[in-house]
Amino acid sequence: MPLDLSAGPVELTRAICDIESVSGNEKELADAIEHALSPCAHLTVARIGNNVIARTNLGRAQRVAIAGHIDTVPVNDNLPTRYESLGGVDYLWGRGTVDMKAGVAVQLSLAAELVDPRYDITWLWYDNEEVASELNGLRRLSVDRPDLLEADFAILGEPSGADVEGGCNGTLRVDVHLSGLRAHAARPWVGDNAIHKAAPVLTTLAEYTPREVEVDGLVYREALNAVMIRGGVATNVIPDDCVVHVNYRFAPSRSGEEAVAHLNELFGEHRVTVVDLAEGARPGLDTPFAQEFLAAVGAEAKPKYGWTDVARFAALGIPAVNYGPGDALKAHADDERVALSEIVACEQALRRWLTAR
Amino acid sequence: MPLDLSAGPVELTRAICDIESVSGNEKELADAIEHALSPCAHLTVARIGNNVIARTNLGRAQRVAIAGHIDTVPVNDNLPTRYESLGGVDYLWGRGTVDMKAGVAVQLSLAAELVDPRYDITWLWYDNEEVASELNGLRRLSVDRPDLLEADFAILGEPSGADVEGGCNGTLRVDVHLSGLRAHAARPWVGDNAIHKAAPVLTTLAEYTPREVEVDGLVYREALNAVMIRGGVATNVIPDDCVVHVNYRFAPSRSGEEAVAHLNELFGEHRVTVVDLAEGARPGLDTPFAQEFLAAVGAEAKPKYGWTDVARFAALGIPAVNYGPGDALKAHADDERVALSEIVACEQALRRWLTAR
Repeated sequence: MPLDLSAGPVELTRAICDIESVSGNEKELADAIEHALSPCAHLTVARIGNNVIARTNLGRAQRVAIAGHIDTVPVNDNLPTRYESLGGVDYLWGRGTVDMKAGVAVQLSLAAELVDPRYDITWLWYDNEEVASELNGLRRLSVDRPDLLEADFAILGEPSGADVEGGCNGTLRVDVHLSGLRAHAARPWVGDNAIHKAAPVLTTLAEYTPREVEVDGLVYREALNAVMIRGGVATNVIPDDCVVHVNYRFAPSRSGEEAVAHLNELFGEHRVTVVDLAEGARPGLDTPFAQEFLAAVGAEAKPKYGWTDVARFAALGIPAVNYGPGDALKAHADDERVALSEIVACEQALRRWLTAR
Repeated sequence: MPLDLSAGPVELTRAICDIESVSGNEKELADAIEHALSPCAHLTVARIGNNVIARTNLGRAQRVAIAGHIDTVPVNDNLPTRYESLGGVDYLWGRGTVDMKAGVAVQLSLAAELVDPRYDITWLWYDNEEVASELNGLRRLSVDRPDLLEADFAILGEPSGADVEGGCNGTLRVDVHLSGLRAHAARPWVGDNAIHKAAPVLTTLAEYTPREVEVDGLVYREALNAVMIRGGVATNVIPDDCVVHVNYRFAPSRSGEEAVAHLNELFGEHRVTVVDLAEGARPGLDTPFAQEFLAAVGAEAKPKYGWTDVARFAALGIPAVNYGPGDALKAHADDERVALSEIVACEQALRRWLTAR
């Protein structure tokens, strides 16, 4: 069934959540978005891979970029979506409702509706945000087609509880390699158990106290976690190899290089290899455009803990903030759910700002 | 190329090692063994799955069972085999040389050669010894065709350095399940990291002091190890699940039930599930048949640390020992290698015993 962009952002959220689009599987949803936008005469629509870019060309003095990713983390028995109230609040439950199809739905509704906005707008919907950064659709566009990202200000619709969240933590993933020597499991004293060597690494992680760091007036909370572990050869062999995959979320005042150095400090007695690194972004809320946006939507400014693609705009010199419906604490959670009122509030505030004269 | 059973046990070891037969892949080797034995008029050969059973039927008053498994643990860049001396000792190097194709080669040579042995002999070559016990060929025969295992005494050709090793430790494998709560890796404080909970489990394992237990005059050394670990959902999700796969080798004076209770004592705050359990076997060296065999081959009696299928014979009331070429410390090792002199010594000692009048 084709998407109905005039159905309202709540119904539209439900419709696009029920088109499963776990990273790598975005084609069906990208097709639906491209198809739904094709009747909009005020938009020039481009399709690049599973990214859809829709631009107005009204000759306005300023342009804003408004972007959202269309992929989700893996489904965990939480699709299709369902409506259910909890504590007197109406929610839509299911994978992607928070991260970040409610934000995408708000954007799609307004993209179709706003034929005469106050600024020229570049709407961007992109793939592979939840996986390695080299696959990220917005990163690929920023490298291959930076002209499509050009703007005076950018808004990313990541879940921010309908508040404005500035900047973002950086994220670093490393493998900590533990090595040993194989032997028969009945005679471990002639081998060297690599999995047992993970004990102090995991103890360090379990006991680690993350920093809270103030940057440009906002306090960023860091995080350090093992997100994957694997080891073992066979059930009767002392393992010679174990790999702990560690994710470090670091404040935007710390560089990528400093983040790598910190993990080497913690785990450097073992071999540490960098798998993925994306620097954070300072809040950037002191720019006039950001100040004006904050005032127009009437939202409070807060720090963003999770890494988001605002960092890609920041790297291009474009001030960028996160603004979208949904409690980020429920992103990736099994009980992921978005309050319907936040979807409506975001749509109304963005409309107010984009149509003010 | 068909196996030449008259090539001598050293060349035959090499030939059967170079037919890769990692557990589950024994068919080619079983075919070769069955084919090579078919001309032997003094043997009745049966093929059951990838197990080959060859029996003499000379009407002797007593029968011995002589058995060996034909599978190996996974190859780790150590095939094909090669001859190389080290410290003045000639070795054959490669996967399976120790565990236990040298023993199988000794058996195959003698099976073909000894047309008039002192006892009736049941030769058994079987599959899947290196994996879960429910797949073990000797176990399956002991259930489906216990008549084929009937004997007054049994010898298993597991590597024992050409000494006689009595009994064996039991082996228990359990999964220790650690559970948590998923959340976005940028906001771990709303989740609960299951991998971090493996820290105390691995610390317990790393610091564990295994017992040494005297049973019937032989001292058994126990062992407790993590042999596999896995955990994690996605690289940006706080994991809600981690499983540590633990192998406990326990002295034959401890029952399987007591072994399970011991691991529950150690890890019982988490969910512990039994994956595989095989009880040990007491040495059994006090039987007259075992005493006579010991004297004939002139070997010293020692405890066997690894679990071996002597326990299956013991469970059927048949006294059984391990006797084969190869240093068990090199079983499953990347530098697995057997001294050629041990292959020859075992073959000669077994021939001496089986042909004495």
